[in-house]
Amino acid sequence: MKKIKVKTALVSVSDKTDLDKLADYFFENEVEVISSGGTFKALKKINAKLKLIEVASYTSFNEILDGRIKTLHPLIHAGILADKSNANHKRQLNDLKINHIDLVVVNLYPFENTVKKNSDESICIENIDIGGPSLVRGAAKNYRSVAVITTPKYYEEFINEAEKNNNYISFKLRKKLASEAFKHTAYYDGVIANWFDKKNRIYQSNKNVLPLKKIHNLRYGENPHQKAAIFSLGNSSIKKIAGKELSFNNINDLEVAFELADNFKKSSCVIVKHGNPCGVALDDQQKKAYKKALACDRVSAFGGIVAFNKVVDGETANEVLKIFTEVIVAPRFSSKAIKIFSKKKNLILIEYKNKKPLNKLLIKSTKNFLLIQDKDLKNVEKNELKFFNKKPNKNLIDDMLFAFTVSKFINSNAIVISKGLATVGIGIGQTNRIDSAKQAIKRKKTNFGNVEAVLASDGFFPFPDIVKICSKNKIKAIIQPGGSLNDNSVIKEAKKQNINLVFTGIRHFKH
Amino acid sequence: MKKIKVKTALVSVSDKTDLDKLADYFFENEVEVISSGGTFKALKKINAKLKLIEVASYTSFNEILDGRIKTLHPLIHAGILADKSNANHKRQLNDLKINHIDLVVVNLYPFENTVKKNSDESICIENIDIGGPSLVRGAAKNYRSVAVITTPKYYEEFINEAEKNNNYISFKLRKKLASEAFKHTAYYDGVIANWFDKKNRIYQSNKNVLPLKKIHNLRYGENPHQKAAIFSLGNSSIKKIAGKELSFNNINDLEVAFELADNFKKSSCVIVKHGNPCGVALDDQQKKAYKKALACDRVSAFGGIVAFNKVVDGETANEVLKIFTEVIVAPRFSSKAIKIFSKKKNLILIEYKNKKPLNKLLIKSTKNFLLIQDKDLKNVEKNELKFFNKKPNKNLIDDMLFAFTVSKFINSNAIVISKGLATVGIGIGQTNRIDSAKQAIKRKKTNFGNVEAVLASDGFFPFPDIVKICSKNKIKAIIQPGGSLNDNSVIKEAKKQNINLVFTGIRHFKH
Repeated sequence: MKKIKVKTALVSVSDKTDLDKLADYFFENEVEVISSGGTFKALKKINAKLKLIEVASYTSFNEILDGRIKTLHPLIHAGILADKSNANHKRQLNDLKINHIDLVVVNLYPFENTVKKNSDESICIENIDIGGPSLVRGAAKNYRSVAVITTPKYYEEFINEAEKNNNYISFKLRKKLASEAFKHTAYYDGVIANWFDKKNRIYQSNKNVLPLKKIHNLRYGENPHQKAAIFSLGNSSIKKIAGKELSFNNINDLEVAFELADNFKKSSCVIVKHGNPCGVALDDQQKKAYKKALACDRVSAFGGIVAFNKVVDGETANEVLKIFTEVIVAPRFSSKAIKIFSKKKNLILIEYKNKKPLNKLLIKSTKNFLLIQDKDLKNVEKNELKFFNKKPNKNLIDDMLFAFTVSKFINSNAIVISKGLATVGIGIGQTNRIDSAKQAIKRKKTNFGNVEAVLASDGFFPFPDIVKICSKNKIKAIIQPGGSLNDNSVIKEAKKQNINLVFTGIRHFKH
Repeated sequence: MKKIKVKTALVSVSDKTDLDKLADYFFENEVEVISSGGTFKALKKINAKLKLIEVASYTSFNEILDGRIKTLHPLIHAGILADKSNANHKRQLNDLKINHIDLVVVNLYPFENTVKKNSDESICIENIDIGGPSLVRGAAKNYRSVAVITTPKYYEEFINEAEKNNNYISFKLRKKLASEAFKHTAYYDGVIANWFDKKNRIYQSNKNVLPLKKIHNLRYGENPHQKAAIFSLGNSSIKKIAGKELSFNNINDLEVAFELADNFKKSSCVIVKHGNPCGVALDDQQKKAYKKALACDRVSAFGGIVAFNKVVDGETANEVLKIFTEVIVAPRFSSKAIKIFSKKKNLILIEYKNKKPLNKLLIKSTKNFLLIQDKDLKNVEKNELKFFNKKPNKNLIDDMLFAFTVSKFINSNAIVISKGLATVGIGIGQTNRIDSAKQAIKRKKTNFGNVEAVLASDGFFPFPDIVKICSKNKIKAIIQPGGSLNDNSVIKEAKKQNINLVFTGIRHFKH
């Protein structure tokens, strides 16, 4: 494919970064520049000798509607859209007495930043650019004849290539820039669509987009042979205040850990490994919460991710330092805690800035599809519980609700055994429920002996067999969704074994 | 906000579906219609009495560049973009002797369908619509003054509202249509961007979009209180040939099951529950592959998802019917198999049409971010293995590679024990590796006694302790990535225990 020489450019930029570099390039290569408004003035100020033409004089049509109509004119668009290899197109431009436009440099009204800063709807609407995307899209479509630049980021690459090639631009660069241009306009409209659609009608619309703003590339993904990056769907931010670079798996783990920790009002501690909590506890004394969470499974906790829902204090920091931990995440760290943690230079400290989840949707890609669902933000309340024996006392109910909440964050089939608002045995991700139950019970026995405790299950018991096992292992209360065909025999067995059974009516599968 | 009355409409539709309904609405409400080309002709043919004006006569500017320039004219765009509540705008339209355009009905050149049907790049480029999106975006921006329709799907709702309200259109409907319009243009440009960017430069670009085409809403998500839908990122398709509606969890499971089954050349069977394989086997005889997969964990397999990589035959169908199964997925079913399966009317049969994965990216949303990585498509080959003892024989290596491949599809920490190309014990998703190993070994013992077998681990052994446990449980070979600080003591222990240790250099974490 042919190189094209840049003789005429159209420039309209709201972001004036590095405009002087572009002006130098225009001047040195004697490029004629069509421009208007602020861009025209800025270019003139940089270099009065530039060959500048105002859009209105070029089109003989004055800007109207407070700038809503400037470049939306056939004389501009014909220059952009004409195919240089087409003799008819050439002739038609001649008839109109206009030239090909070889380069379009446009960046769009800053809609996204305006929306972030300003809630006034009229100002937001005025920042929906109409003329800009038309120019960008036209130039990108016609990349065989035109080059298009949508952000100052590409000025250097463009100018370098022009300098090396006597102001000719290669097909390869033009195509790359066109690809970037359509990403740019697609992202721009995606952000606008999301602004319009605050209630997220993703389930009503047949076509949707997810605009993705990259935060940064990651060293690699779940494994070293996979490339990866982290994207923002909104204003979310975590702040690393110490330690080495976060890995893909670190981020995945810390997000689970903090979300669970943040689910509780009382001071909490959550330890996560491989995406699953291996210890969770609540205690007014943060240090004790940590010690209880750790006690649940010391083997797993080694090298884990630890989350707190309150400011981390020095006492806790000293305790956490006793074993190897990879990441600590909290809303904030006391200066004393930061000082104590600074002894371990690799230890990653993360301050979680946005406590409210911004993603209301849970997105998962499979082999060939994308599955999108509302996040499971349901927390079962006391008044939703269904009792079958005499109503348990408040402490027992609190323990059951605590265990059931934890089960929401564990891969299904999840079984959580707790005592005194601390997990004492967790069964994770087994392909059948009885194995998860056996696993949780075995862990309780190994680490805590045969203590009394309560058991939560993220899904219903398909058969009464688990109740029998519970009875043998001092489980005095069971909380589960209910809804099995065999509920009646499960209830019967619980009564027989004198176990306090509670149904939530809510399931918490997570895969 | 004020209702607006529709006096003038601009119509340009490549999809002529239900255009007659729209024409009737125009005629009955005496709406003046600005139009051109095929739409103008079609409207005239439907009703010669319509008040039709051609774009070229309206603008006094003839269509040029083979139709690339038609509506990109200030007289058109001023009519769309003028604010009806602004006296200056009103005066400027008067000066130009034009009216407000109250309704824009535009659907875009069918770029996506053209790309699907046609690989000729010039034809694809010609189907990038420039004028259409400019009209749609302008009207949507100015939704306080204009209504915009982008698909025949909305004609009925629009006409119904107009009929009920004396041809006035409410603010609510205009805003909804504007929101749909920006989704439409964002999706359109997202598809174009992906077409340009065949190598997927998601890691190079700062802004990206995922265009999402909804296949259909699902009854609910992972749990009944979560809304959900399934989206396509490409041409993927699965065909349900029998049974009840697929649930969210069914789809998630069958995608894992088929992807793993399809990883093997030999006839394979995979049984999945809760997103994890609970039995996998290869055998030239399909029925035997099923029986072996089932034998690995009969308790978990109950109500499972079963995948085959070859056409399902009648013999296999009879075998599968012996226990309760929810979904069977395969490239195809023999007519005999279909007849046999038809005895169970709820049983879901899925023919998998696209064997190649279309999604090269794995997308996962967390509390506040989107993590995107390349899919883990790596399959370790024989020549990549690193041996430390005498090289094992071919059968043993085949078994090790089989087990290691299975481990890629199991939640980490994953341990897979196999014998004769069939799993005999699986350890799933534990927060520490030794517990996964113990679990897999216990399952082997329970279901197969103390048979000799090989063991695969998706991640390295952090300590030599697992080797000792293996030795006590007749594991004669271990395949794992290697890469631990303690590799040397692991190798030493394996030599001591006379276990054939193999390193892959590749890790298969999956969370």
